[in-house]
Amino acid sequence: MAQDRPGEFELIRAYFAPLANDPGSLGLTDDAAVLKPEPGLDLVLTKDVLASNVHFFADDAPEAIAAKALRVNLSDLAAKGAKPRGYLLGLALASDWTERWLERFCAGLSADQSAYDIRLLGGDTIRSNNGLQVSITAIGQVEPGKAVRRSGARSGDVLFVSGTIGDAAAGLNARIDPAFCERVSLARVDESHILDRYLLPRPRTTLAPLLVDHASAAMDVSDGLFADCGHLAKASQVGVEIDLSKVPVSTALRHLHTKAPEDFVRFLNGGDDYEILAAVPAEKAAQFSRQAERAGCPVTEIGRMSEEAGKVRVKENGRPVALQRDSGFRHF
Amino acid sequence: MAQDRPGEFELIRAYFAPLANDPGSLGLTDDAAVLKPEPGLDLVLTKDVLASNVHFFADDAPEAIAAKALRVNLSDLAAKGAKPRGYLLGLALASDWTERWLERFCAGLSADQSAYDIRLLGGDTIRSNNGLQVSITAIGQVEPGKAVRRSGARSGDVLFVSGTIGDAAAGLNARIDPAFCERVSLARVDESHILDRYLLPRPRTTLAPLLVDHASAAMDVSDGLFADCGHLAKASQVGVEIDLSKVPVSTALRHLHTKAPEDFVRFLNGGDDYEILAAVPAEKAAQFSRQAERAGCPVTEIGRMSEEAGKVRVKENGRPVALQRDSGFRHF
Repeated sequence: MAQDRPGEFELIRAYFAPLANDPGSLGLTDDAAVLKPEPGLDLVLTKDVLASNVHFFADDAPEAIAAKALRVNLSDLAAKGAKPRGYLLGLALASDWTERWLERFCAGLSADQSAYDIRLLGGDTIRSNNGLQVSITAIGQVEPGKAVRRSGARSGDVLFVSGTIGDAAAGLNARIDPAFCERVSLARVDESHILDRYLLPRPRTTLAPLLVDHASAAMDVSDGLFADCGHLAKASQVGVEIDLSKVPVSTALRHLHTKAPEDFVRFLNGGDDYEILAAVPAEKAAQFSRQAERAGCPVTEIGRMSEEAGKVRVKENGRPVALQRDSGFRHF
Repeated sequence: MAQDRPGEFELIRAYFAPLANDPGSLGLTDDAAVLKPEPGLDLVLTKDVLASNVHFFADDAPEAIAAKALRVNLSDLAAKGAKPRGYLLGLALASDWTERWLERFCAGLSADQSAYDIRLLGGDTIRSNNGLQVSITAIGQVEPGKAVRRSGARSGDVLFVSGTIGDAAAGLNARIDPAFCERVSLARVDESHILDRYLLPRPRTTLAPLLVDHASAAMDVSDGLFADCGHLAKASQVGVEIDLSKVPVSTALRHLHTKAPEDFVRFLNGGDDYEILAAVPAEKAAQFSRQAERAGCPVTEIGRMSEEAGKVRVKENGRPVALQRDSGFRHF
């Protein structure tokens, strides 16, 4: 570390302590945080590690990197029906970090702390042996026994997905291949949309209480829609039938469906969507859909759970669509 | 990642799932873990990130790297008086990782899970953009309001430290400068001792309940004895007076005191000791010391808390010892 940059204690005081506005953080001046669980509630714990040039680009806006690192964890909490409570931040700073960079990174965290009602409880900052890595452990809470798992779906349950699918993978593609959008004549507004959807996940925290009330199983879509449908089916020991024509897509993806049909299917299963995939018993489906709409986070029915344990069948206009095996995005 | 190495799902199944023997881990098959806090208890949360060639050597035994990453967190829990409950593991594997390496890393975790009664709850594995990084969030529990903080020490309290101080820093020195031990004629058995103390912290978990009953303030010694005394004093708004001749040292360090007196003082404040530093009201001091001895984890009185807020004074045989400002080890 260059001599003129502040040490860990100064960093904590200047940048992180202002984020630690939960009394349990002890102002980040102790060895550990102390959390008083709300009586009777279960805690939901999740941890994601993000590395530059694996999960984000090193030159992404620091605010966006911070937001993504927090939001992928918030997405996991939402999928389990949990309300965010607090998080711990492990930050391995890139060797060329600057104070300005860190200031902007913390501004990104601060904005999201307000947006998602979550607070920094503790953590650790080190210098990385190379690029930036961000490791966040997020803690949520949920009524006892009510955490929504992947394993509760039953044959006949309706399969819903929130938002739109495929945008983030298309956005990543546009980042890697800058000529792509022009080649497929994607409008500028659609290009902005997909780039933004890759950069900034929208964790569906408003769906969390509705999942607790309605869903038999849920997870977030991070590896790819069909891959994650497979995970849900496998955990629940049922199958799943997806109607491709029902999968909700943005204007941008609809354009790609026509202009680049092979890319389109790849993007649908490209991952990084951070939308909610939920199985809902048929008798609760209409109410779930209505309440999600009312909560400002519409969900779309894309299929049904079937009896064929572990099987993912995709149809389009009644005709089977062949999927490449294991075509989901692997962060690993 | 090389094509012939397993993907994340296979890794989880083969290596991590066997470590996740707490029902709350959901067998690592879900987006998150679900923890039922024991009614009425507070949770203590801590997170440390360790990077190769910063906190350990890349060629250290994988079992030792795993143990160190877990133990530095267990040391924080112990210092707060908390009993280990579970942990989440963030693993960024070095680009040249092998299955054999991972198998040994997990064997190290497994042995320590038994030794310290803690279980894997969840986590994330990614490929690092360079060297290995291990990020662990450990969760402990403690009677409500009883977590021992840094901030409760009062003037007149007796200052104790567990184990011996300076071995780990001497061991690190011996790693970096292989001719050191020969130059100062350190016996082979003492060389092994200091190397081992650097490699493998001994978190003083057995002291945790005694700290809850006796200590007004506590922390673990990781930055360096005098530096950490300063942190404790500052947080408690008192001062501290240390008698250097009372600081407990091993046979190896006693040898260095004679043969390399300047190195000796540097090692005493070198950090990585993971011993417990505790302030105990005078009337409880004898009982604390007796019970620690009985628990197999002796503590030594090294000084007293004073009224001079934030001041660390070190004396040896009644004469003041000058400390270099800010000479503690910085992991950052």
